[in-house]
Amino acid sequence: MDIVHRVGMTTPQEAVYAALTTTEGLAGWWTKDVRGDGDAGGVLAFRFAGAPDPGGFDMSVLAANPAQHVLWEVVDGPEEWIGTRVRWDLRTEGDYTIVLFAHEGWRERVEFMHHCSTKWATFLMSLKAYVETGRGEPAPGDVRISDWH
Amino acid sequence: MDIVHRVGMTTPQEAVYAALTTTEGLAGWWTKDVRGDGDAGGVLAFRFAGAPDPGGFDMSVLAANPAQHVLWEVVDGPEEWIGTRVRWDLRTEGDYTIVLFAHEGWRERVEFMHHCSTKWATFLMSLKAYVETGRGEPAPGDVRISDWH
Repeated sequence: MDIVHRVGMTTPQEAVYAALTTTEGLAGWWTKDVRGDGDAGGVLAFRFAGAPDPGGFDMSVLAANPAQHVLWEVVDGPEEWIGTRVRWDLRTEGDYTIVLFAHEGWRERVEFMHHCSTKWATFLMSLKAYVETGRGEPAPGDVRISDWH
Repeated sequence: MDIVHRVGMTTPQEAVYAALTTTEGLAGWWTKDVRGDGDAGGVLAFRFAGAPDPGGFDMSVLAANPAQHVLWEVVDGPEEWIGTRVRWDLRTEGDYTIVLFAHEGWRERVEFMHHCSTKWATFLMSLKAYVETGRGEPAPGDVRISDWH
């Protein structure tokens, strides 16, 4: 089962790609606590100190094709996430960079998947704000959507 | 294929249920242009005049079990939506009303499904704001997420 999303931003593809593949960019919209290497073959470690569960995710970067495609595999994190993949496809459409997002390979439609779907959407809106205005809402200042944060 | 989401709001279950089953409530967070009957057996007509595609959806209300469960079937609207179902399950968890949402029965993982998933998330955040503060962001004043609005 997959979580899917689509957003469009009035920012060149290259800048959106940088926000997905550099720790400076990722810290601008997802979590300020990110380390590692966002190029193909690297590993990125995302941590969320502000959340009730102070965990995080380690992503192995399977692909990073400049300005077009990024693919991560979750190698550490919540049990439901291990082995799932996060896919980003970018293209230009008129004045917009279109971002197609998928978090693929959920084994069951658990309640945590529902939560992550909504949470991804708010982080994608944070990505959009970050690349369009320079100001996103990364953790620990991320949008609270429920008791699960 | 299903779109799923989870949000929590610090508002009693009954008030959230009213926001899903009365035209006044639905107009507070989804679209101001809504008519019909939100009780079981009724039909609700949602229109989105501000969007690039000035269409909408007609939902047949298959179930409306007070304060717990609402189920709609799409009887008119975009081709991809016809026959799909929108499911709402509410429960109380501590200080929160938890809303589990699913838009079920997509035949293919089309780009429009990606768009609708993100759009549902922003409308669910609008629902949360509406029931918690009295002020949502219904269409035509809804959050713009892309060129598809």
